Amino acid sequence: MPTFVPNGEDRETIYSCYVIDKSHKLLGVVSVKDLLLAKDDAIVGDLMDTSVISVTTVEDQEEAARLLAKYDLLALPVVDKENRLVGIITIDDAIDVLNQETTEDMQIMAATKPSEEPYLKTSVMELAKNRIVWLMVLMISDMVSGGILGTFEDALTALPVLITFIPMLTDTGGNAGSQSSTLVIRGLALKEISIKDFFPVLSKEIGVAMLCGFVLSLFNFIRIVIVYPGNYLLAATVGGAMFCTVLMAKSIGGVLPIIATRFNMDPALMASPLITTIVDAGSLLIYLNIAKMCLTL
Amino acid sequence: MPTFVPNGEDRETIYSCYVIDKSHKLLGVVSVKDLLLAKDDAIVGDLMDTSVISVTTVEDQEEAARLLAKYDLLALPVVDKENRLVGIITIDDAIDVLNQETTEDMQIMAATKPSEEPYLKTSVMELAKNRIVWLMVLMISDMVSGGILGTFEDALTALPVLITFIPMLTDTGGNAGSQSSTLVIRGLALKEISIKDFFPVLSKEIGVAMLCGFVLSLFNFIRIVIVYPGNYLLAATVGGAMFCTVLMAKSIGGVLPIIATRFNMDPALMASPLITTIVDAGSLLIYLNIAKMCLTL
Repeated sequence: MPTFVPNGEDRETIYSCYVIDKSHKLLGVVSVKDLLLAKDDAIVGDLMDTSVISVTTVEDQEEAARLLAKYDLLALPVVDKENRLVGIITIDDAIDVLNQETTEDMQIMAATKPSEEPYLKTSVMELAKNRIVWLMVLMISDMVSGGILGTFEDALTALPVLITFIPMLTDTGGNAGSQSSTLVIRGLALKEISIKDFFPVLSKEIGVAMLCGFVLSLFNFIRIVIVYPGNYLLAATVGGAMFCTVLMAKSIGGVLPIIATRFNMDPALMASPLITTIVDAGSLLIYLNIAKMCLTL
Repeated sequence: MPTFVPNGEDRETIYSCYVIDKSHKLLGVVSVKDLLLAKDDAIVGDLMDTSVISVTTVEDQEEAARLLAKYDLLALPVVDKENRLVGIITIDDAIDVLNQETTEDMQIMAATKPSEEPYLKTSVMELAKNRIVWLMVLMISDMVSGGILGTFEDALTALPVLITFIPMLTDTGGNAGSQSSTLVIRGLALKEISIKDFFPVLSKEIGVAMLCGFVLSLFNFIRIVIVYPGNYLLAATVGGAMFCTVLMAKSIGGVLPIIATRFNMDPALMASPLITTIVDAGSLLIYLNIAKMCLTL
């Protein structure tokens, strides 16, 4: 004989009533709405919905919040391994959890160790500790780009104007890659994109990169021909490097978050800071090799 | 005499009952919980709460969602200018709105025009259109950094090793600034930070920058002394430039989103891509000027 969980004024929500047996096992759910609209002689056992969506105590809070949001539930019962009702998560908890998870994602995407405290309540020491590890890791990785520049020192000193295009090329590469990775990371978080979308994402990013790359490349070609009259080879070098950089950056930015997911890493790690570091080295290699070929340095 | 809004099976929610008068003006709210727990002879006029939280039809959907989340409401009445009840927003709508607004924030933070369509359903042409404007704007802004490098061409060709530290300095500056701006942008979105926190944020960022800057700077100093034995001036130049770059980057990254808010701009614009572009130019100026002074180029 199912018993009815008592509810009252002190309960946070009374709109989902969970039906349990004597050993507290969850049998079903009946909403107050169903109760109110039911006939007077109906019994709870008939009214209740036995296919209850529930979470177990060991489940991730994010998963619980996502279930609440997905099925438009007001509350979600929490059961133990033996399917005994041990608690309820309500929709207002879910909003807090979702907000908190998004904040965490954003912090990771900004190369910061996530902190649960609000910004203003976090001490300077704590903030510095959360940030220094990634700053150090990325700074050391950036030495690869420095090494590439060192290798091409002769070319750069022979034609110093080449140096002036470096920030534009590496930054545009970083921006192009970050655009792609951010959209894919968010898509993965919202479950709009999954691992099986690897090739659709890659082909989309290649398409977008060809369009954006062409426009940016053409702009540079024309600008350089105007600023350095007749220097078509320089214009072609920078324009060509720009096109290849955008293509590389968007391909890497698009697929790295998916690859991270595949290997059970947080895709949010594959955001702007890491993408920028990888793309920097790549764009310098592309640019300086094209320069060496075209300008016979 | 107040009348009771009829509710029933076809309604999305029946747990908040809004009390209106004959001209549909909103008088109060009574929850089903209160009704169920009330004495049988209680009248609705006594049970209802007359201080109803409501939104008007012209209000931003984000504001409505935030009110629902803030006050842990299941539903929020929507009224017209004459306080007549015209609709209800429910908590599940609010979750969708909050998710959508976060996605929009992230897209803007990645220098992309926000799109309401999921990534995989957006055409290549549309994605390219959303991205090209910011890529172009930032690329043109990056020419400032190119110009700075051009001005210091003599110094760079006289001591080419200087070139190899550029990616590390500009990228670390960009990363340091993005960390700060992302945390402040998110704090502003969650209303944890407001315009009046300008100075607390600035002083916190300066503190964090001094700690992080010191560690990164010391690391570089030691590394350079080891790799280029005895070249203390080069080590001091790079170390000093690193410290100043991190200090500048974190100050700018921390306060720009607040300044944007003050001028009614979206703080999310002041994210990684724009910060990186500004910080790049700043860090090159710092680095090359210190180099000129220390290394008497």
